[in-house]
Amino acid sequence: MTRFAFTVEFDGRPFMGWQRQAHGPSVQQAIEEALERITSERAVLHCAGRTDAGVHGLAMRAHADIAKDITPFRLMEALNAHLKPDPVAILACEVVADDWHARFSCVGRAYVYHILNRRAPLTFEKGLVWQVPQPLDAIAMAEGAAYLIGRHDFTTFRSAHCQAESPVKSLDRLDVVREGDRIAVHAEARSFLHHQVRSMVGCLALVGMGSWTPADMAAALTAKDRGALGLNAPPDGLYFVKAKY
Amino acid sequence: MTRFAFTVEFDGRPFMGWQRQAHGPSVQQAIEEALERITSERAVLHCAGRTDAGVHGLAMRAHADIAKDITPFRLMEALNAHLKPDPVAILACEVVADDWHARFSCVGRAYVYHILNRRAPLTFEKGLVWQVPQPLDAIAMAEGAAYLIGRHDFTTFRSAHCQAESPVKSLDRLDVVREGDRIAVHAEARSFLHHQVRSMVGCLALVGMGSWTPADMAAALTAKDRGALGLNAPPDGLYFVKAKY
Repeated sequence: MTRFAFTVEFDGRPFMGWQRQAHGPSVQQAIEEALERITSERAVLHCAGRTDAGVHGLAMRAHADIAKDITPFRLMEALNAHLKPDPVAILACEVVADDWHARFSCVGRAYVYHILNRRAPLTFEKGLVWQVPQPLDAIAMAEGAAYLIGRHDFTTFRSAHCQAESPVKSLDRLDVVREGDRIAVHAEARSFLHHQVRSMVGCLALVGMGSWTPADMAAALTAKDRGALGLNAPPDGLYFVKAKY
Repeated sequence: MTRFAFTVEFDGRPFMGWQRQAHGPSVQQAIEEALERITSERAVLHCAGRTDAGVHGLAMRAHADIAKDITPFRLMEALNAHLKPDPVAILACEVVADDWHARFSCVGRAYVYHILNRRAPLTFEKGLVWQVPQPLDAIAMAEGAAYLIGRHDFTTFRSAHCQAESPVKSLDRLDVVREGDRIAVHAEARSFLHHQVRSMVGCLALVGMGSWTPADMAAALTAKDRGALGLNAPPDGLYFVKAKY
């Protein structure tokens, strides 16, 4: 068996999420089925971070063990051919050591969340950004974001369905960058809780609207209570950007 | 009658082009029908540059004369509400002088053409960029583009359906800019011939692939013959960016 690592770009709009689901299409299923058509093997795909329905991937990392004798380049080309018309593309493929694991070897994850801050409806980017019509104060959002940096109990920003053993996580980066009517929130950590980025962004949007003060972010964090969450941002604007090994 | 000027963003994928067509949906028809629902008037919409099927607009300018007493802001909001779910958004609306004309007052047009230069298939951007799998040399493309700047007979780069009186146009800008696997070609002129930008970009891509030398651009131009055209780029990557008044 050879372990192949993949770098995957996907548009999350048509999928129920990364992970296989009984009730709808998933990125994992699309790639596993393409692998089976190429290799006649039932390989299991492991990824760096399972994404929710509607969340996108720019460079998700994943791996699978394959017995068939095939070069990484030919496997990548065959996967891209078989994945059509699904909006999933294998950007890179390489052979890795047998003990390399897309999820367990990963020591850092980066996400970006894109907000389009304008009144006019979306055209090109329906499902690809979160449109917020009220003017957002990105300076206040950045000030609020700073309270979350560091090692904290993120219970407030954690979905009820989160399976992580502990709600304590170290947040390394939460930058808010405005360019014209676009606001990008960049988040980096060793790992995140379920819905953590969307919950942080939702509350930051409340700060941007003036409904919350920047210090309300600290109060929400200290509450350690999901009931203190102001708003969970929609999946549309969320992209898995990078996995660090 | 009051003359309203509009700034319009549209995703060209579902449309047969800007101009009304008997055989399919158009941006003009979508906006004119929304206007009629709001005003009960049959206003005619004039635009700065009619775009082909599949071509996009970031800030197309257009105007219409309306009798109804309505503020520009309310008209814009009502249009955006009535345009749904079409991927057309009115970004700005203002009252202009009766002799201001979206087409005839326009003294400069800017387009950008987006190429995604990679082997992997498109995911987010199907229909929104031209995917070119062969490696493109953007330096050579920029060198070839320079031959087209200035006042020339652009017959080679003109569609057989072009209705312009003369094939002589002054090209003010044709810049080729690479950022990672993306190449943007920026084109500016007082006006363009039908298919001119796509035809110039198609030939530049041949230069990028090494099929043409940069100087072959000059030879194609000098030929003044549509038969000397190497390649017409698809509409997918073309965006109307700006009209100057």
